[in-house]
Amino acid sequence: MINSTLIQDWFKQLQTDICTGLEDLDGSASFGTDNWLRAEGGGGCTRVINGQTIEKGGVAFSAVTGQAGEKMIKTLQIETNIAPEELNFLATGVSIVLHPRHPLSPIIHMNVRYFELSDGTWWFGGGIDLSPHYVDATLAIRFHQQLKEACDAHNADFYPQFKTWADKYFYLSHRQESRGVGGIFFDRLNDKTTGLDKNQLWAFVKQIGQTFVPAYRTQIEATRHLPFDDTHLHWQSLRRSRYVEFNLVWDRGTHFGLQTNGRTESILMSMPPQATWIYDYQPAADSPEAKTLDYLKNVQNWL
Amino acid sequence: MINSTLIQDWFKQLQTDICTGLEDLDGSASFGTDNWLRAEGGGGCTRVINGQTIEKGGVAFSAVTGQAGEKMIKTLQIETNIAPEELNFLATGVSIVLHPRHPLSPIIHMNVRYFELSDGTWWFGGGIDLSPHYVDATLAIRFHQQLKEACDAHNADFYPQFKTWADKYFYLSHRQESRGVGGIFFDRLNDKTTGLDKNQLWAFVKQIGQTFVPAYRTQIEATRHLPFDDTHLHWQSLRRSRYVEFNLVWDRGTHFGLQTNGRTESILMSMPPQATWIYDYQPAADSPEAKTLDYLKNVQNWL
Repeated sequence: MINSTLIQDWFKQLQTDICTGLEDLDGSASFGTDNWLRAEGGGGCTRVINGQTIEKGGVAFSAVTGQAGEKMIKTLQIETNIAPEELNFLATGVSIVLHPRHPLSPIIHMNVRYFELSDGTWWFGGGIDLSPHYVDATLAIRFHQQLKEACDAHNADFYPQFKTWADKYFYLSHRQESRGVGGIFFDRLNDKTTGLDKNQLWAFVKQIGQTFVPAYRTQIEATRHLPFDDTHLHWQSLRRSRYVEFNLVWDRGTHFGLQTNGRTESILMSMPPQATWIYDYQPAADSPEAKTLDYLKNVQNWL
Repeated sequence: MINSTLIQDWFKQLQTDICTGLEDLDGSASFGTDNWLRAEGGGGCTRVINGQTIEKGGVAFSAVTGQAGEKMIKTLQIETNIAPEELNFLATGVSIVLHPRHPLSPIIHMNVRYFELSDGTWWFGGGIDLSPHYVDATLAIRFHQQLKEACDAHNADFYPQFKTWADKYFYLSHRQESRGVGGIFFDRLNDKTTGLDKNQLWAFVKQIGQTFVPAYRTQIEATRHLPFDDTHLHWQSLRRSRYVEFNLVWDRGTHFGLQTNGRTESILMSMPPQATWIYDYQPAADSPEAKTLDYLKNVQNWL
């Protein structure tokens, strides 16, 4: 049976492999490395790149441990007979956000994570989702196909369930629009919630992690040689502001991290290199920008 | 005795007066006007400027009414014997955020507001605070003197109390720094909490509203002719990202508004024209930027 040490080690290696893959994809820059320790237990390694293809990107590994405490037990709505201060937790995973320089290339996010408590509670969570500045239906479909293939290898229900979950999660209520073209999102996967055992779920999570680089390569290679002008860059910058809004207002992980003394620079490595806000901006009718908004305002069934 | 109709009318006129004052200060642009209605009751008028001195600024008036409901009563922790669905509320006020083009000029924020319930509950709230991209102690002191004068005309305890309140409120815990050089912040002022009657408190709130333009004029006139270069603009853009972080992560009004179907464009008129994020950015030792961070990381008693 897989155990938490093996999971952590594999996540750490995944970070290395993904960084190597992304350096190859970028073709110009390499990742810096920031190792950090957490006073209460555990630590992490945050790796950041500022490249030619990836204007600003971060790939973060962490394995955080400590006393669970009342706030965590309450926030996570965990039912247990053990007192919160007698419970220890481990949270480990890899998180990625990449902001490409090319306005026709999409922003991408991935997270794979594992959580356990000393009372035997455990689960996996994670997801991958794509936020194009300009939605290209063919590329959105290709992305969803790659995710569906990874899911279908483990459980035929996963893709439809986790696609719907992503549509719900990556949604800016205050804008009434999706963050992007979605992807998959899943949380609290364990034997009870899925019927699959720990080894089976771990195999699924590993495959999601391994799907990341090839999936993003598909998107980058299809877009990075396309011509663009200042109109595209301006729109990219406006879309980046929506990414900021989602992460700071709605993303539960970001919020929880910032309000519980998490490592700020690692949490906010998801921020774009820059962003623009214009009061009540409306793209011209029938423009490519308006078409993208149309896609974002109406959740799509890509497959 | 002052009543809610007179308060609303005065706030609406304050918006007009402030916009006129700011157009004069800007010297190049005028405010646009967006009137809006709220389906559940009331509405507002959002006025936005993109000028030479004020790169992006908004002056918003609103007077929103409706059924209070359980969520509002709970959020505001109101003790009442009347059922939430039988209570009506009125919330009215003026909110301002101005982002100047010149990196040595400060961002400024003001809010004056009045809230009442149909059971007789009422209070005033508001504040003014200054967020310089570069802290100039002389100008911070001048700003606080202007606020102290306005407060002292009504109650000698107000300035020290409300200055401390602002230091607490306009604080980015996740950065361990203040949003700026502070100012004053106050909430739930009524006869019970202050010992002043409604007319007296209204006179105070009116004076705060009237202090805004002259106080900002002092800051702008002292800074707008100073030379600057790309280093200043770069730092301005980084500081603007902190302003975004405060408003989207910590500001209760913004959060409450976005999560309760408020008018998004009016709430987010506070966003800067653009902002920059750099992973783990550290200004050079002893630079003006480092000196500013020093001020922000250590709350000052300016007077």
